[in-house]
Amino acid sequence: MIPTKGYAVKDSKTDLAPWNFERREVGPHDVQFDIQFCGVCHSDLHQIKDDWGGAIFPMVPGHEIVGKVINVGSHVKKFKVGDLAGTGCLVDSCRTCENCKEGLEQFCLNGSTETYNALGQDGKTPTYGGYSNTIVVHEDFVLHISDKLDLAAVAPLLCAGITTYSPLKHWKVGKGHKLAVLGLGGLGHMAVKFGVAFGAEVTVLSTSPEKEANAKKLGAHNFIVTKDADQLKSVTGYFDFILDTVSAPHDLNLYLSLLRVNGVHICVGVPPTPYEVRAFSLIGGRKSLAGSLIGGLPETQEMLDYCAEHGIVSEIEMIDIKNINDAYDRMIRGDVRYRFVIDMATL
Amino acid sequence: MIPTKGYAVKDSKTDLAPWNFERREVGPHDVQFDIQFCGVCHSDLHQIKDDWGGAIFPMVPGHEIVGKVINVGSHVKKFKVGDLAGTGCLVDSCRTCENCKEGLEQFCLNGSTETYNALGQDGKTPTYGGYSNTIVVHEDFVLHISDKLDLAAVAPLLCAGITTYSPLKHWKVGKGHKLAVLGLGGLGHMAVKFGVAFGAEVTVLSTSPEKEANAKKLGAHNFIVTKDADQLKSVTGYFDFILDTVSAPHDLNLYLSLLRVNGVHICVGVPPTPYEVRAFSLIGGRKSLAGSLIGGLPETQEMLDYCAEHGIVSEIEMIDIKNINDAYDRMIRGDVRYRFVIDMATL
Repeated sequence: MIPTKGYAVKDSKTDLAPWNFERREVGPHDVQFDIQFCGVCHSDLHQIKDDWGGAIFPMVPGHEIVGKVINVGSHVKKFKVGDLAGTGCLVDSCRTCENCKEGLEQFCLNGSTETYNALGQDGKTPTYGGYSNTIVVHEDFVLHISDKLDLAAVAPLLCAGITTYSPLKHWKVGKGHKLAVLGLGGLGHMAVKFGVAFGAEVTVLSTSPEKEANAKKLGAHNFIVTKDADQLKSVTGYFDFILDTVSAPHDLNLYLSLLRVNGVHICVGVPPTPYEVRAFSLIGGRKSLAGSLIGGLPETQEMLDYCAEHGIVSEIEMIDIKNINDAYDRMIRGDVRYRFVIDMATL
Repeated sequence: MIPTKGYAVKDSKTDLAPWNFERREVGPHDVQFDIQFCGVCHSDLHQIKDDWGGAIFPMVPGHEIVGKVINVGSHVKKFKVGDLAGTGCLVDSCRTCENCKEGLEQFCLNGSTETYNALGQDGKTPTYGGYSNTIVVHEDFVLHISDKLDLAAVAPLLCAGITTYSPLKHWKVGKGHKLAVLGLGGLGHMAVKFGVAFGAEVTVLSTSPEKEANAKKLGAHNFIVTKDADQLKSVTGYFDFILDTVSAPHDLNLYLSLLRVNGVHICVGVPPTPYEVRAFSLIGGRKSLAGSLIGGLPETQEMLDYCAEHGIVSEIEMIDIKNINDAYDRMIRGDVRYRFVIDMATL
């Protein structure tokens, strides 16, 4: 077994603190890479607090993981020692169901294995995430990372990046489309970058007027303060797509009214309470309300390659691991532009 | 003005009763046709009871109207005296907005004019529907009806037919798809017929086991009693599409769980309360919840032509107009297979 250092919570009531644990030995198809940076996703906070139930403790969070390969199994073909590597939200899946075969491992019919707070495909071995110094992952769930990009700023692409890239690709958002991005946080700022890169006219919808300058800096063409009734009215029936990154409760009927005929409102956030959707909000304009969940492995690699080619990374604020609990407090207050990334050298 | 006989309600509390009124003179682009049959849509009942608010009284319901042309204006090109003709839910629209130009008059940005309980494009002249002996409509909103089909059984195609045909066409439902039809009433039975005609595998989802024989008679391949947990479980993640014709409140999360990855749940009913949709019901499988509203004029004609070619009509029970109030009572009890049609000769 491989001795590993990390930060964990022992239960849902305590803060993250140093914890030593073991990773499995490197198997024939495994890649071991030392973790240099790990992004801090809002879902890390939900999971350590057991907001969604079924948490497995001790829990080492982190699913935006990048670093350098230090060991590979005898059958590994895709990686060699010294390569840059990354792992996102998934470390395994059944690989045999129709969704896995189509590269949609996030929808594995037998249950994919998440990078932490989950059990392996054996149904009993807990997984531990990227707030740690090293990780062992089957090569099929390890991504190639280009050395052209700032490695720390690549980390959030593994979750925030693919979560926004995938729906924009799936619904073929691009030139000639009017895209609204609802919420300008870790997910939203990546949605703006991808939307602009794909050629769409991008409008940020936000409750905070003070975010306008930053939205424009990220490339957004327009900015609408959703609390301003006149501004909102000016975009009634305007958008082809809304990418909704908000995980607080909000009134979808209002946003559906901003879509034109055949418009699609795509949710990637998970509010704690159900959406209340009036039938006529959809029927009056043949509109759709859709969901999207991260992306499969092939598409995640495609996204990383696209980012390398187009120079796209996340906007980040680097933190030392000892400040992670403060970072959570700031994240709750919305005080982050736009993603915290832990420098694992500080572990 | 043209003296017209019909049945109307004087307010939301009274029953339908005979009422004499006037239609406009036949203008240069108008077609006048004598109404032979008019279907009874569930929304007729909602509108006379003012369930949706804003009702205009006296109200002559009816938007599934077929008959024979008796007069045409000097500029009418598409119809001549003696032709069969029909009119559905719309009698006018602005004709200039982008949706009208695309043949999506039901989504007219300036407000289409419904066949009854609405105001004309002049903003002041009330429209009166098909529970009457004759009607005058601009030729652009009159449909050609084939003489190959039973005229009475064609009437419901003008609303129940196009309401189900349009979404199946829009989402390209056909060979290789598994389609569920939720609810087997006026809309649902047409959805079964079209789904089968388009080559899909059609399953009826119903709370009533006694509907199975009729569902199969209509061509459905499978029947699932939704109250039976085992039957329901057998179709988890099974369907590509669900066409939801139910206008009573129901739990969409349950039905969304029956969709496979990328599945689409299409609503054509309008329940009185909002749907409660959990984000994960959509996100877990990249599913969509969509709405669809009748169809535009070009597609309505396409549907009628398709029906003529494939021998598709509604299953109907003919009634005399004097029995309309009893028919409503039976409709409320679900006691109709599958659409009442009024024989206007009984007026």
